[in-house]
Amino acid sequence: MALIVQKFGGTSVGNPDKIKNVAKRVLKNHKEGNQMVVVLSAMSGETNRLTDFGTEMQEIPDPREMDVLLSSGEQVTIALFAMAIKSLGKDCISLLGDQVKINTDNSHTKARIQSIDSDHIVKELDGGKVVVVAGFQGVADNGDITTLGRGGSDTTAVALAAALQADACEIFTDVEGVYTTDPNICSKARKIDRISYDEMLELASLGAKVLDIRSVTFAKKYNVPIHVRSTFTETEGTWVVKEDNKMEGRIVSGVTYNRNEARITISGVPDQPGIAAKIFTPISDADIIVDMIIQNQDTGNGLTDLTFTVPRSDYQRTLQLLQSVAEKIGSKGGVQGSDSIAKISIVGVGMRNHSGIAATMFSILSKEGINISMISTSEIKVSCIVEEKYTELAIRALHDAFELDKESVPEEENVI
Amino acid sequence: MALIVQKFGGTSVGNPDKIKNVAKRVLKNHKEGNQMVVVLSAMSGETNRLTDFGTEMQEIPDPREMDVLLSSGEQVTIALFAMAIKSLGKDCISLLGDQVKINTDNSHTKARIQSIDSDHIVKELDGGKVVVVAGFQGVADNGDITTLGRGGSDTTAVALAAALQADACEIFTDVEGVYTTDPNICSKARKIDRISYDEMLELASLGAKVLDIRSVTFAKKYNVPIHVRSTFTETEGTWVVKEDNKMEGRIVSGVTYNRNEARITISGVPDQPGIAAKIFTPISDADIIVDMIIQNQDTGNGLTDLTFTVPRSDYQRTLQLLQSVAEKIGSKGGVQGSDSIAKISIVGVGMRNHSGIAATMFSILSKEGINISMISTSEIKVSCIVEEKYTELAIRALHDAFELDKESVPEEENVI
Repeated sequence: MALIVQKFGGTSVGNPDKIKNVAKRVLKNHKEGNQMVVVLSAMSGETNRLTDFGTEMQEIPDPREMDVLLSSGEQVTIALFAMAIKSLGKDCISLLGDQVKINTDNSHTKARIQSIDSDHIVKELDGGKVVVVAGFQGVADNGDITTLGRGGSDTTAVALAAALQADACEIFTDVEGVYTTDPNICSKARKIDRISYDEMLELASLGAKVLDIRSVTFAKKYNVPIHVRSTFTETEGTWVVKEDNKMEGRIVSGVTYNRNEARITISGVPDQPGIAAKIFTPISDADIIVDMIIQNQDTGNGLTDLTFTVPRSDYQRTLQLLQSVAEKIGSKGGVQGSDSIAKISIVGVGMRNHSGIAATMFSILSKEGINISMISTSEIKVSCIVEEKYTELAIRALHDAFELDKESVPEEENVI
Repeated sequence: MALIVQKFGGTSVGNPDKIKNVAKRVLKNHKEGNQMVVVLSAMSGETNRLTDFGTEMQEIPDPREMDVLLSSGEQVTIALFAMAIKSLGKDCISLLGDQVKINTDNSHTKARIQSIDSDHIVKELDGGKVVVVAGFQGVADNGDITTLGRGGSDTTAVALAAALQADACEIFTDVEGVYTTDPNICSKARKIDRISYDEMLELASLGAKVLDIRSVTFAKKYNVPIHVRSTFTETEGTWVVKEDNKMEGRIVSGVTYNRNEARITISGVPDQPGIAAKIFTPISDADIIVDMIIQNQDTGNGLTDLTFTVPRSDYQRTLQLLQSVAEKIGSKGGVQGSDSIAKISIVGVGMRNHSGIAATMFSILSKEGINISMISTSEIKVSCIVEEKYTELAIRALHDAFELDKESVPEEENVI
């Protein structure tokens, strides 16, 4: 008998009929002899509807009350799901975040799980019930409802799986798993069978939307195997697991992209200690998150250029902020930028043992005539900023060159 | 400084704009120096929407899960209300049934309040906050969410007022107060300034919908003055209070009606011990609630007739049930009935000290040519079953004859 945690997102439980279908699927697994814990999101559209109500009441809705408001969405789906299971003849109980006890800190709208009391769930499972838990929500020490932020239901599921020492955590979604790249852009994109936590973390933080990044962090910490799969088929999806031997054959696991950033350059600034702080402190004070930063070598005139990226939605605000900074610090070149850029990244644990992967990436892009304006690397990824119009071309070229469409690639053949 | 509990129903908080208006009204009272506790229902239509979802999932929705489902409605309104108050510059906190601790028994969908812990609310009030509480919901000893049934928010408000020893409990509604009769039927209907708990109980149980009957029972028990008034005007409404001298001048306070019942007669049954039990046990077993029962005197042939009323929606079911009962007990006359009847009632504490009020009522109806088929009386009310088509005529005639349109009636003039 296995204990399985299954999470279904908003599109999977978008209306009563879909909830019934999910109930049938869960029951099938239950009848196969498994103990089932189900985590549900709010019906698709519901969180937006409630958020709109909130912003109608208060320009910046109070975070504590926003959590009271939004957590009602999952409350509705778990009650309906429990009814659906019961109508199919099995016993089921719904539990809210505070009924499970999913304890969080009190950072409303972006709370972090601190502990989970698994006793209540275990008792109900041992009583033969299917247990359905509201995703996305928890309770602070003072009894306030908290929510975990967008994508929080993934984290609920993984955290529950960890607390219950579940055999697997299955995340059901509207795609069949994690792909080597976006199938909408590259028709050769292939579903990945197994991927390591670290690779998944990079992919998630670089733009792949299939899993919430915090849930992967949690899964890695507690070594919870995650199975990402489709609500609408029975096909095996992608297992996100601890790095193992089977993964070594691959150098690059996936190609991803992000078109939500903008690039800004402040040029001709004095190359002296403290200059970076003078530029980035006001940006940080304005709650603008800087991703990549590059400082050019001083070429002898005592001046340097700084280039960095920010979320595209903060582009105009950052430009305005920097105009006055540029004057203050005596920039000779002023501020320029572009909001039509894309970040193209390759990710793979195999890079750890292979040198020259970054150079290979540059030469592939170069062959296609794509100019790289910024580069950033980590142990298992290389990211390049290019003009946005080259996004599709870059992805297809990299996907082809690293032969990601092929099931298993012997190491020797990976050198291009 | 007074402590006031105010309850606003679903139509008063039916959309974001209405919630803002309620917030302004509450804040006005707060600024006048009062401590304010606000109890809200779900937005109008929301409870029906959720109920429909529930019945779509399960033919008879599981009561525990129904409570999880329905209680989400009030959760939404209290969060939005708290945001509205905050956007107006005052501090406010929303509390759910389990956060207040409104402890109930575990009769899901019709739970009864057992105790209220007022500490949390008092602490927040003393901190200068407006406190908004979800109506209609509580928490059972095992941590399950419970709901109090339709109209339950009135009960929440009165129970909170009792627990907090509030100076008043104001129930806001879409009418201006309690009327001598339905203004839609009788244009001379007059708003009552003060009415006793007992009269209000009778009126509520006889068909007046303005207050939930359990809330009046609660108010009577703990002597909480209720002020029923309009959300949309500043006019004083009706005070529901302990019986006092000011009420003595009146014999009849109100005329009410109920068109949701049906009458059934089983005739020619043997007049012997146990016959009533044989008839009513199967009806009770079928969860059909019998209201009035009349058994005719045995006129010498050893046979009797039994007439009673049931909810109109159970009429056909009761008729069918009784056909087989009639055969079993050897009824000579069979089963007849009518589902086009009305129950017309007069209510007034003054009846206690005045004989002949029932006779007066009968003669008024008789003068209008209205036949009475059943009669039921209590210390402070007289009810008559008449044909439904006479409803309006009967109400107007009684309202006129007992001079309910007049502000204060000297006792002598009441004899007709």
